[in-house]
Amino acid sequence: MKDLYCAVDLGGTKINIGIMTKEGEVLDNIKIPTEVEKGPANSINNIKNTIYELLERLNLNKNDLNGIGIGSPGPIDSEKGIIVESGNLKGWKDVKLVEKLSEEFKGINIKLQNDGNAAALGEYLFGFGKGCKNFIYITVSTGVGGGAIIDSKLQVGASSNGFEAGHMIINLDGRKCNCGNDGCFEAYASGTAIEKIACERIVNEESIISDLAQGGKVKAQYVFEAAKRGDKLALEIVENEGYYLGVGIFNIIAMYNPEKISIGGGVSNCLEMFYDKMMDTINSMSLNSSTQICKVKKAQRDDCGLVGAGALAFYDI
Amino acid sequence: MKDLYCAVDLGGTKINIGIMTKEGEVLDNIKIPTEVEKGPANSINNIKNTIYELLERLNLNKNDLNGIGIGSPGPIDSEKGIIVESGNLKGWKDVKLVEKLSEEFKGINIKLQNDGNAAALGEYLFGFGKGCKNFIYITVSTGVGGGAIIDSKLQVGASSNGFEAGHMIINLDGRKCNCGNDGCFEAYASGTAIEKIACERIVNEESIISDLAQGGKVKAQYVFEAAKRGDKLALEIVENEGYYLGVGIFNIIAMYNPEKISIGGGVSNCLEMFYDKMMDTINSMSLNSSTQICKVKKAQRDDCGLVGAGALAFYDI
Repeated sequence: MKDLYCAVDLGGTKINIGIMTKEGEVLDNIKIPTEVEKGPANSINNIKNTIYELLERLNLNKNDLNGIGIGSPGPIDSEKGIIVESGNLKGWKDVKLVEKLSEEFKGINIKLQNDGNAAALGEYLFGFGKGCKNFIYITVSTGVGGGAIIDSKLQVGASSNGFEAGHMIINLDGRKCNCGNDGCFEAYASGTAIEKIACERIVNEESIISDLAQGGKVKAQYVFEAAKRGDKLALEIVENEGYYLGVGIFNIIAMYNPEKISIGGGVSNCLEMFYDKMMDTINSMSLNSSTQICKVKKAQRDDCGLVGAGALAFYDI
Repeated sequence: MKDLYCAVDLGGTKINIGIMTKEGEVLDNIKIPTEVEKGPANSINNIKNTIYELLERLNLNKNDLNGIGIGSPGPIDSEKGIIVESGNLKGWKDVKLVEKLSEEFKGINIKLQNDGNAAALGEYLFGFGKGCKNFIYITVSTGVGGGAIIDSKLQVGASSNGFEAGHMIINLDGRKCNCGNDGCFEAYASGTAIEKIACERIVNEESIISDLAQGGKVKAQYVFEAAKRGDKLALEIVENEGYYLGVGIFNIIAMYNPEKISIGGGVSNCLEMFYDKMMDTINSMSLNSSTQICKVKKAQRDDCGLVGAGALAFYDI
C-alpha cells in the first residue's frame, strides 16, 4: 500500500476533494458545490461524505489515509485549525474545520492552511518549482494570491496569512480594490480588474466586447476572445494586464529574489497573450541581478491547489 | 576565552569594524573612512590593519577569532564572497573580498552578506526581534533597505539579494528613483526623498528650511528641525513621511505577515515625529488579521549592521 493522503481544496464556489500519493499523483477526485449560503455544517458534512465516496471508489477505508490536508480561503488560524473569516465564504466565521473533521476521522493527522500557501506548496513539490530553493506561486483569477517557498520552506507567516500579494499597493490613490484600499495589485491585474476596466471603457469606446457579453456580465474571457479577434480596446486591456502583472511580479522579485515564479489561476490560461509585455516590463526595470536569474512560467499543475492541500498532511512546515 | 568574532560593516562612506561575542556584545570597534575612490585594494588593506589594531587593543591574536562576518552594499555573491557591483561603492566591481581577506586570515571562517540582511540578523538576534519567528528590519536613510527573518531563518534569496524593499513600486509612474524606476518606495520614504521633496517645495513655498540650510544642501535633518519649530511646510513633509512609510510597511506586512518590524537608519531617529501617522496609515488599511498582530518600533540596536555582520560568522543561514 502506498502512502495515501486526502486533499481538500475548499473554494468559494466548489470544493475539490481527492486521494493522492506522496508523489503528487491524484488517484481519484470529486468536485462538489460549496453551497456557502447553506453554512459550514452542511459543507463539512458534504466533505465527509465525499471522502467516503472516494475511499469506496478506490476500495479503501479511512484507516488507509495517512493524513488529510485542507486549503481554504483566508484568513485562517492554522494552529487552531479554524477558518477565521473569509470574503469568499460569506457568513462563515470561526469555523472549527479541523475539529469537526477530526470527530469523524479520529487519529488521522489533519492540517489546514490558506489556499494560496497550499497551491504554492503543490506547484513547488510537483510542478515548475520542483528542485529549486526559492519559489513563488501567483494565482490570477477573481483576485490575486499565492504563496512563497523560501529556502525550501513554505512561508506561512505569524498568523498563517503571509503572501497577500494581491493587496500590495502598487498605485497610491489608484483603483479601488474590493478590500477597501486604493491601488492594490489585484485592483489592476486580477480577472475581476480586467472585467471592471472593460466595463468602464466600453461605455465610450467601440469594441466587440459588448457583443460577446450579449448584454450580460462582461467576463475576462470575453476580453481575451475579443483581443484574439483583433479588437483594439481588448488588445489594449490585455497588453495592460501584462504591464500590471509585470509591475507586481517585479515587486515580488525585489522582495523575495526567487529562482522561479509560476503563474496559475484562470487568467493564466491566456498568459501567452500578455507574456511578452509582462516580461518586457520586468526586464526594463532595475535590480537586474535579481530579475535576470528569475524564470517566470505558467503553472505546470492546474491542480496545484489540490495536491498542495494534500501535501500539507506530510510536508513539514 | 569567550567565542569571539570579527564584524565588518562596510558602507559607502565608512567601515565599522568590531570584535564581538556570540551574545552580541561589542568588546571594541573602530570606524575608518571607506575611501571608495581609492579602490577596493586600499580598503581591504585598511580593514586588515584595523582588525590587527583591534586585536592588539584587546590583547588578542588572530587565532582567537572564530570567524569574520562582513555586511556590504549589494548586489553581492554570498557563495563566492564577491561584491558584484554597488551603487554605494562606485567603481568597485567583482571584488573578491572574502578571498583577499582569507589570504591574511588563513583558516578562519569568513562570510559575506548584503548589509540589509546583516542588519536584520543583528536586530533579530540582539534587538527588538529577539525571540520572535517572523521579523522584518527596515532601514530608512539615504535609501530604504532591510531584511526579513522568516520562521527564524534569514531570507537570503536565490542570489543573496532578497528584500530590496526600497525598490518596491508603490506609485505607478510616480516619483523618479535613483535606480531608474518610477514610483519606488524609497523615492517617497527615504531621507533622500525627504530632501528632494523639500528642495522642490521651498522654491515656491514659505519655510525656514532654506534658512536652516543657509544656502547649502537641504538635508533631511533640517526638515525635521524646521518641523520641530512648527514650520508648516516641514510639518507636512514629515507627516507625509509617516504616510509613505506606512504604505510601504503595509505592503511588507501583506507579503510577510511578521510579528514585529524594527525601523532603523538615520531617519528613524525622528520616528516619534511621524510614528502616529505611519501607524494610522497601516491600521486604516485592510488585512486586519495581519496588521493588528504586528508590532512596529524603532530599532533597539543602532549597531545592528555591525553585530549582524559579525553574527554571519556563526549563524547558520
